[in-house]
Parts: sequence; C-alpha cells; structure tokens
Amino acid sequence: MTDYSYETAVDVRLRDVDFMGHVNNAVYATYLEQARQAYFLDVVGVSLVEADTVLASLEIDYVRPIEAEQDVTVAMRIPELGDSSLPMEYEIRTDGETAATARTVQVVVDRDTGRSAPIPTAWRDRIESDRN
Amino acid sequence: MTDYSYETAVDVRLRDVDFMGHVNNAVYATYLEQARQAYFLDVVGVSLVEADTVLASLEIDYVRPIEAEQDVTVAMRIPELGDSSLPMEYEIRTDGETAATARTVQVVVDRDTGRSAPIPTAWRDRIESDRN
Amino acid sequence: MTDYSYETAVDVRLRDVDFMGHVNNAVYATYLEQARQAYFLDVVGVSLVEADTVLASLEIDYVRPIEAEQDVTVAMRIPELGDSSLPMEYEIRTDGETAATARTVQVVVDRDTGRSAPIPTAWRDRIESDRN
Amino acid sequence: MTDYSYETAVDVRLRDVDFMGHVNNAVYATYLEQARQAYFLDVVGVSLVEADTVLASLEIDYVRPIEAEQDVTVAMRIPELGDSSLPMEYEIRTDGETAATARTVQVVVDRDTGRSAPIPTAWRDRIESDRN
Repeated sequence: MTDYSYETAVDVRLRDVDFMGHVNNAVYATYLEQARQAYFLDVVGVSLVEADTVLASLEIDYVRPIEAEQDVTVAMRIPELGDSSLPMEYEIRTDGETAATARTVQVVVDRDTGRSAPIPTAWRDRIESDRN
Repeated sequence: MTDYSYETAVDVRLRDVDFMGHVNNAVYATYLEQARQAYFLDVVGVSLVEADTVLASLEIDYVRPIEAEQDVTVAMRIPELGDSSLPMEYEIRTDGETAATARTVQVVVDRDTGRSAPIPTAWRDRIESDRN
Repeated sequence: MTDYSYETAVDVRLRDVDFMGHVNNAVYATYLEQARQAYFLDVVGVSLVEADTVLASLEIDYVRPIEAEQDVTVAMRIPELGDSSLPMEYEIRTDGETAATARTVQVVVDRDTGRSAPIPTAWRDRIESDRN
Repeated sequence: MTDYSYETAVDVRLRDVDFMGHVNNAVYATYLEQARQAYFLDVVGVSLVEADTVLASLEIDYVRPIEAEQDVTVAMRIPELGDSSLPMEYEIRTDGETAATARTVQVVVDRDTGRSAPIPTAWRDRIESDRN
C-alpha cells in the first residue's frame, strides 16, 4: 500500500458536476492541481504562481464517481526526485474511499530560456524533509 | 427590436452542461467573453489578451435553457461609447431563438496605474465604423 | 449599508485565475452558485441538486480583482420573497473588502410542466426564520 | 508514426488560459472529451449524453503549450476494441504541430447495474468501418 506523506481537502463545487451527474473527468486534474498548490505552499514554501514549473504528464485512473456533496481529499507523495523533474503520486478520496489514483510529472524550467532547470536546492531540502 | 451589428458562433461543450442537464448559468458569461474576444479581433483589431480593459459589470437575463447539442450564436452591439467605458448589449441565440439577453460594461485601464483611461482613438474609429 | 444574514467561504482555485492574472469574471457567478448551494443546504435544508429552481437573472458589479491566494467569502440575503421567485443579494469579499456585489433571481419551477410554481411553504418558513 | 482515422477542430476559449498564460492542463482533458463527443456523433451515431459509458483512465503527455489564439485540432484513433472497453489514442495539434498526445479508456456500462456491458454491435460495426 502506498504511503502518502501529505493530504489536503478540496471543496467540490456544483459546477464540477457534468451532464452525467458526477464530477467531470477533467475536474479531477483541477483537484490534483489544487493539491499540488497546497503542497507547494505548505511544504515547499512557494506558490505555483511564482514557481517556474510546467506539467509534463498526467495519468488518472478513475475508480469511483464523485458526487456533488461528498467530502474530497487528495493524498499525495513524491516518490523520488529527478534533476529537474518532480514526479507525484496521488489518491483522490471521497469519504475515505479511493475515487481515483493519479500520477503527474512536473518539470522545473528556466523562465528565460523555457528549458528544464535543476530543482532549486531549497525546494529539494524541504521536499526531502517532508518525505522522511 | 434591438439591432445587433455583430454576430459570432460559440461551440457548446459537453463540459458546459451542469447537474441540471443544461448549460450552466456561469458559462453564459464565458460565451459573452468569447463574443467580446471575437468582436475585438474582428472589429477593433486587437486581442483582449493585449487590450488593457477590465469588466466593470455584467447582467444576464436567462430566457430559455441551452442544450449540449444546440447551435449557439451571440449577437451584439455597442449602444454608445463613454470616455473610457465600452457598454455592450448581447443576445445569446440557440437555433435562432433568444436564450438570453445580456449587458456588460468594460472599462479601458492604464496598465501602469490601474486607473481608467480614454478609449484609444483607433478603437473608437473602428467601433464607430462598425456601428454605421 | 446592507445587512447580510448569511455568509459562507469559497475556496479560490488556481484554475479560477485567467489570462489577466485574476479570478475570471465568469467564476464570480460560480462563487454565487456555491453560496446559494451553501445557503440552501444550511437554511432551507435541501440541496440545489434536488430543488426544482432555475436562475432567471444575474447581475454582478466588479469592484476589485480577486487574486489566487486570497480568502473569499460570500455574504448574502434574501430581501423579500415573491410567490415563486427568490431574489438574492450578495457581497463577495476578499480579506474583508468588497470585491463585488451581485443580485440574482431564482424561480421555483414545476419539474413536470417547466412552469413557475409557488415557493414550498417549508422553504418559506425557513427562509423567513433566517431573515429575522 | 501513428495513423489517426478521425480529426476534429476545437475552439480555444480565453477562459481555457490559466495563470501561466497558456491553456490549462485540465482543459486538455476537456478537448479530448469534445473530440470523443464529435467522434461519437459522427462515427457511432450517438451522443455521449445518450451513450452509457464512463471514463476509466486518462493519460496526457504535454509537448508544447497552447496559446489562446491558436487553431487546435484533435486527431484520434481506436487502436482495438475490447469486449466492453473502448481505448482511444489522440494527438492534440496546434497549427499542425503536436501539442500533446493522449490515451483514454472508456467503458460501456449497464445503466441499471452500473457494471461493464458489451459494446453494442451497432457501435462495433460503425467503429470497425471507420478504422478501415
């Protein structure tokens, strides 16, 4: 069983629900983004608005539909750090049950050149501390 | 009957439909924004991404629900120009019928001070030409 | 000064921010919808998902931009009840300051005919109690 | 090189652009949903609103950011059909260049039991015809 180091709550909005009566598949990606933002603010100490990163990949496995009035939390962990890439693993939970699992890879970029850049040492230290 | 000078099509997305099975009320504001962007690109010759304007007010009267597979167009006009404010009147139409009417006021701002600024003369000329 | 009887918090999402770097104008309508849903659950005792109502009109006056990391609350009141219409007045606040004021009219409808229907007595009683 | 059998255009909205100035990562999932809806309407002859399917998984590899004013198309193919699962492969293109590649698995469900159900024969025939 995966051991997640961080967990954050997400408010489900009526607007998240789609024509099928459940939270729309694309909105899960927004929940993951909110979880990344919470993690960055809490653990890394910087907002994604200021951080120079881009999303390289996203994978979601949908397990169970999410209803408008459920409580949603996102548990997450960073399994290992690359030179410039930040992989993350997630579990979206509704009332304690797994609604989806997901993985993303985020890459640190140089704002000027647009190329990948090393993960800042201060980030690496804070992320490593949180993992232990 | 209001005489609209400009009309543009908007693609309805499945994602626009909400828990009630119709296009969500907030999405109408997005359709109006798309119509403003089309108008700015076509008539004023500048993208809203480059134009220094902010939305000051929005009013929508919902007449008829919009379904996922309907064809939507937005008809619009600028009834008169203020010094720095651009009022617009809209009719959102589905298959030729009125689905909603709306009004917005957009204000030109000075990017540096954030204060209202005069409508650029080039814009005024193009908007006036389109009205006649 | 308007005296609001109900207030609820709304989580700003990164996704709410648009190309201008502030919460998008259409998202304010979603914040109002979340406030209505909170009010209905708390005061009326029914979810909007179950309630047979439609939005008839929406007006928003934008006062101040909302940033991604601000705390947002929506204060609201029902100034008076019609036979089948529920008018609401709102103030969207960021860190205690007015970011926008808004008004909506919601109408109770008969699910079968789609026509307006009287506000259920139980709703009326709960709404009146909350107003006093 | 993958040979896509179907291609559809998607209108980029200003609202799709996020705090980073590009189309938000979650919106790509909405573009894929629009492509699936277009494919279902054109090839399978049924709207996703009527079809009893759920999304089981989603993978997106982001190659290049998408700007507000770019022309976007989604090319897609169904590599093979399972008993009840419909895998799809996609390429999101901006001005002819690859902006992202993606894969989804959609599953046909029985509306009453919520369990997976065989792909209807009529769908299978139309999908097979389109592949050849």
